Amino acid sequence: MSRTLSLAVIPGDGIGPEVIAEAEKVLDRALSGSDISVTKERFSLGAARYLETGDVLTDDDLDAISSKDAILLGAVGGKPGDPRLKDANIERGLLLKLRFSLDHYVNLRPTRVYPGVPSPLSDAGDVDFVVVREGTEGPYVGNGGSIREGTDHEIANEVSVNTAYGVDRVVRFAFEKAQSRRRRLTLVHKTNVLVFSGSLWKRTVDAVGTEFPDVEVDYLHVDAATIFMVTDPARFDVIVTDNLFGDILTDLAGAISGGIGLAASGNLNPAGTFPSMFEPVHGSAPDIAGQQIADPTAAILSVALMLDHFSLTTQAAAVSKAVEADIAERTGAPRTTTEIGDAIVARLTG
Amino acid sequence: MSRTLSLAVIPGDGIGPEVIAEAEKVLDRALSGSDISVTKERFSLGAARYLETGDVLTDDDLDAISSKDAILLGAVGGKPGDPRLKDANIERGLLLKLRFSLDHYVNLRPTRVYPGVPSPLSDAGDVDFVVVREGTEGPYVGNGGSIREGTDHEIANEVSVNTAYGVDRVVRFAFEKAQSRRRRLTLVHKTNVLVFSGSLWKRTVDAVGTEFPDVEVDYLHVDAATIFMVTDPARFDVIVTDNLFGDILTDLAGAISGGIGLAASGNLNPAGTFPSMFEPVHGSAPDIAGQQIADPTAAILSVALMLDHFSLTTQAAAVSKAVEADIAERTGAPRTTTEIGDAIVARLTG
Ligand SMILES: CC(C)[C@H](C(=O)O)[C@@H](O)C(=O)O
Ligand SMILES: CC(C)[C@H](C(=O)O)[C@@H](O)C(=O)O
Repeated sequence: MSRTLSLAVIPGDGIGPEVIAEAEKVLDRALSGSDISVTKERFSLGAARYLETGDVLTDDDLDAISSKDAILLGAVGGKPGDPRLKDANIERGLLLKLRFSLDHYVNLRPTRVYPGVPSPLSDAGDVDFVVVREGTEGPYVGNGGSIREGTDHEIANEVSVNTAYGVDRVVRFAFEKAQSRRRRLTLVHKTNVLVFSGSLWKRTVDAVGTEFPDVEVDYLHVDAATIFMVTDPARFDVIVTDNLFGDILTDLAGAISGGIGLAASGNLNPAGTFPSMFEPVHGSAPDIAGQQIADPTAAILSVALMLDHFSLTTQAAAVSKAVEADIAERTGAPRTTTEIGDAIVARLTG
Repeated sequence: MSRTLSLAVIPGDGIGPEVIAEAEKVLDRALSGSDISVTKERFSLGAARYLETGDVLTDDDLDAISSKDAILLGAVGGKPGDPRLKDANIERGLLLKLRFSLDHYVNLRPTRVYPGVPSPLSDAGDVDFVVVREGTEGPYVGNGGSIREGTDHEIANEVSVNTAYGVDRVVRFAFEKAQSRRRRLTLVHKTNVLVFSGSLWKRTVDAVGTEFPDVEVDYLHVDAATIFMVTDPARFDVIVTDNLFGDILTDLAGAISGGIGLAASGNLNPAGTFPSMFEPVHGSAPDIAGQQIADPTAAILSVALMLDHFSLTTQAAAVSKAVEADIAERTGAPRTTTEIGDAIVARLTG
């Protein structure tokens, strides 16, 4: 018996293609010798494609991507301030469009401080937590608008939409995640100000929590959570939070753990109705593109998240371990993107 | 000729009364020998008052407070999770009600890393910036609601309201502030996702910026801003941002600068139509209340902001200098709240 994993690969812009090349090598090696064969289709999407054709994400591309088992994405976005991209909004039209169309309701973002990786914190402690960020609701829904634009009487509104359906499923995922870890869940919100959505989140965590009596729950306002993120990040195990707070907290988490170059993410559809998407948290960094100086580790760790998603636990652990070993032996001497990828592949052998 | 400054004093809950007592001593000393006399009216507001009378903020109290020249507030809020406070929401009903009713459209929050104060960052650098947080709009307006509450079909919305009028006035204040400092203004928003409000903020900064050609402007997404806050906070001079992002960034700023115990704030109505309000950023910390172990420095620095607001520049500088000298000579030996206040008062003499 053999299985096939069909993969949509979106290398994207800037350093995207460089880091994805290494991630693919690692994926291939991790699955070599298993009964799983990977078929890949590449999609040229992002700022470069937009500049060439005017397309951000065509229906045909979206259909083809939707039919895959998973998506591996590098990074999308052009040079900041490029006037030719002014009307594109690649983020909303491509990245968020994929997350919303494919119902990626869990945005999973682990953070670890690896021994040997310098943190800006003088004493980060033993940091190992995951943020379960909601991915399909909140202020990200795009339900805003303006009137009298460009006049002194302009009003611009943004609506954060939160549903019992949407909050329940992500909270449930977070509790399960906590149960498989150190059994501590922190809800982050701003219930004292955003009273309606905050109340829904709080009540949902309370209700679902009764089904997980072994998981200890606490609550932090988002402002206070940023304080703990720099004073005591080791206190966190699983954080569950809304789309916008999750966006902010995971960049901060990336920073305190030694840089966004190690931060992986999975945009998950745990129900399996559409393919999940795996991508490094970092952007396309056009300023350093093509120079072979980008760190592919975040992309490679995103492959580990993908393997985990398909319950390929052994292979996922092997990739994580290889990365960990590679990081532990970094000497500070510069290596090319390819050299880092090759070193990690080499550790997967045997 | 003599002048009178009428002050509403709201000591509040927890450590509020302790830190406000020291702030008042400092204010009195700073103005002694000047032609300004201070008249004070005390308002018992906060969780304690609510538990006693059921009032959060009566119209009579609001009227009386509105007639003053300024407000000095300690901190309000009861024990977290106190079931008797469940329906109170002191934050919305009191603190935010004051900010909105008195049109505190600038929430001014300076951050400095004082020599000798330990920061969680191993190398904070020379940090000295102010956040100009909008105070009367954004997701704080309270324009949310739910339908089908408590059912599987609940929907809870929050609306962020942003107006040309409201954004223009706070952006203008921020440019003026930057002009009096290192002439560098950073707009923080999330324009790639919150496209309508983001566009209004961006266009307003661009437009007002043409009147301040000597101020250098840059832009950061809020998630990226949190990264710089821990990797290079010295890059900031003036940050202008919306109500919610400002809330988050200023707690983080307090944390990296050695703790919220030093963070002061002014809720300003620069137009002068209502009294401005000065308060430490920290909360009421009921767990350490009444023990004389709270640091009154943030409350005292809030007095400096108040003096500045009334253009009492010499007195404001004297208070800041006294605080700075006090901080520089801290030995780590514990001092009571009163001892810290007394030490700062002593430095104001002569
Ligand atoms: C690019 C942007 C739309 C995106 C987000 O805000 O989600 C990014 O910051 C992220 O965290 O993946
Ligand atoms: C108490 C709360 C409503 C308040 C806010 O969110 O503005 C506080 O966090 C602050 O920053 O002053």
